[in-house]
Amino acid sequence: MAVDQTKLLLDTVKRLLRREARVHLHKIVNKTHGADLAVVFRFLTLREQEALFDFMETVEQKAILFSELEEEVLVRLIEDMPAGKIAEILEQMPKDDVADLLGKLSDERAQALLDLMTKEESEEVEGLLGYDTETAGGIMLPDFIALKEETTAREAIEALQKEYVDIEMPFYLYVVDDHDRLVGVISLRQLVVVPPHTKLKAIMATDFVSVETNTDQEEVARIVARYNILAVPVVDESNKPVGIVTVDDVIDIIREEATEDILKMAGAGEDLVESESVLKSTRIRLPWLLASWLGGIIAFFIIGHFESSLNKLVYLAAFIPIIMGMGGNIGTQSSTIVVRGLATGQLNIKQMWNVVAKELAVGFLLGFFYGLLLGVVASFRYDLWSLGMTVGLAVVSSMTIAAMVGSLVPMVFARINIDPAVATGPFVTTSIDILSVFFYFQIATLLLRL
Amino acid sequence: MAVDQTKLLLDTVKRLLRREARVHLHKIVNKTHGADLAVVFRFLTLREQEALFDFMETVEQKAILFSELEEEVLVRLIEDMPAGKIAEILEQMPKDDVADLLGKLSDERAQALLDLMTKEESEEVEGLLGYDTETAGGIMLPDFIALKEETTAREAIEALQKEYVDIEMPFYLYVVDDHDRLVGVISLRQLVVVPPHTKLKAIMATDFVSVETNTDQEEVARIVARYNILAVPVVDESNKPVGIVTVDDVIDIIREEATEDILKMAGAGEDLVESESVLKSTRIRLPWLLASWLGGIIAFFIIGHFESSLNKLVYLAAFIPIIMGMGGNIGTQSSTIVVRGLATGQLNIKQMWNVVAKELAVGFLLGFFYGLLLGVVASFRYDLWSLGMTVGLAVVSSMTIAAMVGSLVPMVFARINIDPAVATGPFVTTSIDILSVFFYFQIATLLLRL
Repeated sequence: MAVDQTKLLLDTVKRLLRREARVHLHKIVNKTHGADLAVVFRFLTLREQEALFDFMETVEQKAILFSELEEEVLVRLIEDMPAGKIAEILEQMPKDDVADLLGKLSDERAQALLDLMTKEESEEVEGLLGYDTETAGGIMLPDFIALKEETTAREAIEALQKEYVDIEMPFYLYVVDDHDRLVGVISLRQLVVVPPHTKLKAIMATDFVSVETNTDQEEVARIVARYNILAVPVVDESNKPVGIVTVDDVIDIIREEATEDILKMAGAGEDLVESESVLKSTRIRLPWLLASWLGGIIAFFIIGHFESSLNKLVYLAAFIPIIMGMGGNIGTQSSTIVVRGLATGQLNIKQMWNVVAKELAVGFLLGFFYGLLLGVVASFRYDLWSLGMTVGLAVVSSMTIAAMVGSLVPMVFARINIDPAVATGPFVTTSIDILSVFFYFQIATLLLRL
Repeated sequence: MAVDQTKLLLDTVKRLLRREARVHLHKIVNKTHGADLAVVFRFLTLREQEALFDFMETVEQKAILFSELEEEVLVRLIEDMPAGKIAEILEQMPKDDVADLLGKLSDERAQALLDLMTKEESEEVEGLLGYDTETAGGIMLPDFIALKEETTAREAIEALQKEYVDIEMPFYLYVVDDHDRLVGVISLRQLVVVPPHTKLKAIMATDFVSVETNTDQEEVARIVARYNILAVPVVDESNKPVGIVTVDDVIDIIREEATEDILKMAGAGEDLVESESVLKSTRIRLPWLLASWLGGIIAFFIIGHFESSLNKLVYLAAFIPIIMGMGGNIGTQSSTIVVRGLATGQLNIKQMWNVVAKELAVGFLLGFFYGLLLGVVASFRYDLWSLGMTVGLAVVSSMTIAAMVGSLVPMVFARINIDPAVATGPFVTTSIDILSVFFYFQIATLLLRL
């Protein structure tokens, strides 16, 4: 469903809800994919959500909706729903999504729901709840098919037919040795095209990749993306397979991580706070601005230090915005390129000095260009050649320093294992503001003999 | 292979290349996955790349390397390679990657390579070359299996076995009617678990999603991500299937689009320019800084306009950085939240006024907090109550306006179909700089009776 169609659906649903057009709503809701309904739900009030939910007929559709809804929305939606009704839907959902949801509920509520599941299911979900949510263990599905090396292709297909209902994405089968350790992977397509009596041992791939339960989810995503695979097996410390991470979860991770990086760089928290209340949103964003405030206070004292220079040539103040702005903008360019380069693997911290040296050169060239431009304007405006020289040099120094700081800081943070995206926003901008102002007044005092 | 292992591999390869340790290199290269080699290649000089490439033995590994390498790197690498040798590798690559590569070569070179392919293959690749690279047609694979409704499961599996070699990811089979129009989709797993004589008509899903050849690749990615599917069929204007877009390509698109958004927001071009030369990088970044330079010039004239006020109270200048900085940072927060929210679908332009009103409130609250803080500091420092009031109010107005402009501009751009990410960087920052300075001096002139 295209973006325009989603908007149309949202408009239609809202209109029908207002009109209480039950027959129409019923028809629309039940022919719409759960994933599309999830998008619509995001933009409805709780009341509208509850009304719409009541029109949904099949448990399967409800399960897709639950899997796709953001957890905060879902938690609110099920707050007043009877546990039995919820459990019925949870049964149809992938276990990792069930575990994610239960992790957000109160302990009693989660326990009540676990009690309603079959023993096998609740054990699987509880197993998942034991892992950190941002690791392979936290995002894996415990359902997969593991067979012995001596199994034949025919037996494997039979196993697949038997386990069919439980397995979400059986595109790979895993082969284990007599100690249940993972030794090979076979894709369903290979299984179908070999003679039925072929043993798995003979056709399995042994150069597969796997991850451990405590592997970070970003690393898992990188592996799935790099090797173009549809699922990666997760093994425990003794190399026994305990689950798989599927490509659809990887897509969500890649998107989330990109959002997180973008927001961190802007100093706007880690999650999109647009759905939060004004007060909560204010609280999340408040601390990020402190660096900028403190930096501003430092810049204030620096300018205060040069007050006598400023007294003699008051129009020096008029150049503060452009000198700070040019530094700030090129610094953001540099740090963004470095942070994103590191995140996508296109840059490597081993190249630190190369990258910083290159940024220094780029900063100097751009500084030279825009400094010259400003120098010429200033010389004409005030008919004072030395003022032009001063502001020109200030732009050169500000932009060169900014490009260097902007590229160096995230590199250093990455090297000492601090997330470079966090470093880049307010921290880099603020340092650059301070340095730009300081060098500007220092150059002015020297060149203009103030 | 984890990030650390990649670094280790890169170090080892570089060391062995320096030492010309042929036997070791040979062993390492041939046991490493082509995708890992592609990462290593990225950080080698052309000379080192050529040396390493010569050690690769299997055409399959070379094909994976070619598919994974960035096109600029690849084009340089094959520049001096004989066409016959290249064609041999292209034969093993997915057709969409071949088309992408040929699109980057000179017409003669591309034609020479096409001439070396079988007629069927070259026709398929030429077909792909006809589509815009950023549409479904440009990223699709022309290989897929389409069968008639009356086909049985057994016949379908036989077809799969026959076509096996050519098909990259045969996890879905497509069902067409007598006019070759797409009417259903079956997953390989369904095919395996039904009785062999079952007709496809009876088991195919008819509520599948499909895209058209000219659908934008971002839209394709959104669809694959939303419905958790492994491949989406691409149809022509008469609803005949012409190809499929697979989930591995979708992952690359999602990552690229995130990078593009991040870079655009920072005003640093569209592609990561870190691998470019200093001069080229400078050229790409130069125009983005012009907005900031022009904005600085406007701020300069605004301050010039208030020169007489400034003459009377020269230390007003010392507050310029903090007032600009606070506005700039909250503006970046607001616009980033909105741009990312729109990109991920968590925000909708229908909510424009809600979002802007909310940002206005958040901006005012944060402005009140930091304005009060600055007002107190300023009052004490200069023992002048009205100065504290002035700078406090300036922070409030700067931050409120910044939050509003930062959220409104990307919303408006999205509504008139201009990419909000482009709008957000230098444009928003610069407008905020100008407005902040203007309101600051206006407030100062009024309150301090200058």
